Amino acid sequence: MDIIKQLEWRYATKKFDANKKLSKAKLNIITEAFNLTATSFGLQTIKLIVIEDKKLREPLVEASYNQKQVLDASHLLVICIQRDIEDTDVITYYNNIKTIRNTPDTILKPYQEDLINMMQSKSIAERQQWSTNQAYIALGNLMTVCAIEGVDSCPMEGFLPTKYDEILKLDEKGLKSVLLLPVGYRAEDDMFSILKKVRKPINEAVIKI
Amino acid sequence: MDIIKQLEWRYATKKFDANKKLSKAKLNIITEAFNLTATSFGLQTIKLIVIEDKKLREPLVEASYNQKQVLDASHLLVICIQRDIEDTDVITYYNNIKTIRNTPDTILKPYQEDLINMMQSKSIAERQQWSTNQAYIALGNLMTVCAIEGVDSCPMEGFLPTKYDEILKLDEKGLKSVLLLPVGYRAEDDMFSILKKVRKPINEAVIKI
Repeated sequence: MDIIKQLEWRYATKKFDANKKLSKAKLNIITEAFNLTATSFGLQTIKLIVIEDKKLREPLVEASYNQKQVLDASHLLVICIQRDIEDTDVITYYNNIKTIRNTPDTILKPYQEDLINMMQSKSIAERQQWSTNQAYIALGNLMTVCAIEGVDSCPMEGFLPTKYDEILKLDEKGLKSVLLLPVGYRAEDDMFSILKKVRKPINEAVIKI
Repeated sequence: MDIIKQLEWRYATKKFDANKKLSKAKLNIITEAFNLTATSFGLQTIKLIVIEDKKLREPLVEASYNQKQVLDASHLLVICIQRDIEDTDVITYYNNIKTIRNTPDTILKPYQEDLINMMQSKSIAERQQWSTNQAYIALGNLMTVCAIEGVDSCPMEGFLPTKYDEILKLDEKGLKSVLLLPVGYRAEDDMFSILKKVRKPINEAVIKI
């Protein structure tokens, strides 16, 4: 597996083949990879919404500045953050560590306290920004995983999150949409797929000191 | 290549083997992968600083809350953002597209104008946040690329960026440090390497609708 070759193969797919579907196995890899994304403190205050149903996706096109990828892709991935982070999120997380690793409370409690205090010291906007950072890490991870698996994707920030939240009833789930990643297979006539990749010369992007 | 196996193998390395170095080939893969990271509009307002010299890294330990990974790792990667985004950044980018793809000015100019206007409409803090989002995408990409290549890494937000900027003279380069990623090989006695991974049950992290 030549990772550089796969990253060069990847591009922001402008037109998906509406008839090609991801296999269950591919979709499982993507969702597992999302759950394995590194997040700050391991707290995982992000969620992935996977939408296959095209009827449900139809009204999302307008909320995405008419970018048809959200409808034509095999699946639409919506990366969401929790609307807020509560003490119970931290407590549940540490209980999970205790269950999985059998770590004694005496070791875990001080870390749990520190994390609760850290979260309480932030404003709700800061907590949302903190979660949004994790959403971008997940996006970076998923684009690379898709490239490795020969799955096309298109990262999208250009959409109306409040419209998405309304249409997908994300408020009821305590979530806010922050990033989109339609996934599937490129259309044969997507002219963007044959354009040369534009990047800075490596010695401008990377500085060795 | 089983990507899930590699993502499960990855962990935030707490102790690196100070005697193990990355080969030039591995380092090249990592730097190329950084340059291939998808960024919003393709503008690449982030840079990667690669530090091998241990003398230079010694004063960084204190600026990293004494986390020894920044010194013991084979290389320390510092992901930076540009302090600001100027019109010339956008113009240089579109000139680069023109050179690489031979796209006519009549097609490129309106997009160039739009992007300049979009950037000018933001505050400097907003432009920095915009670039920081791209830094997180790069972090997500690089952690996955390292995992695929059997390279250990440790994502770090916990450091003093202003101290880093001072020590590494980033101000002179028009840069600000935002994220660290020491890379190398785990020490045999890093007890964290054998701990079970803690993640939410997949049906809590991923919602299919």
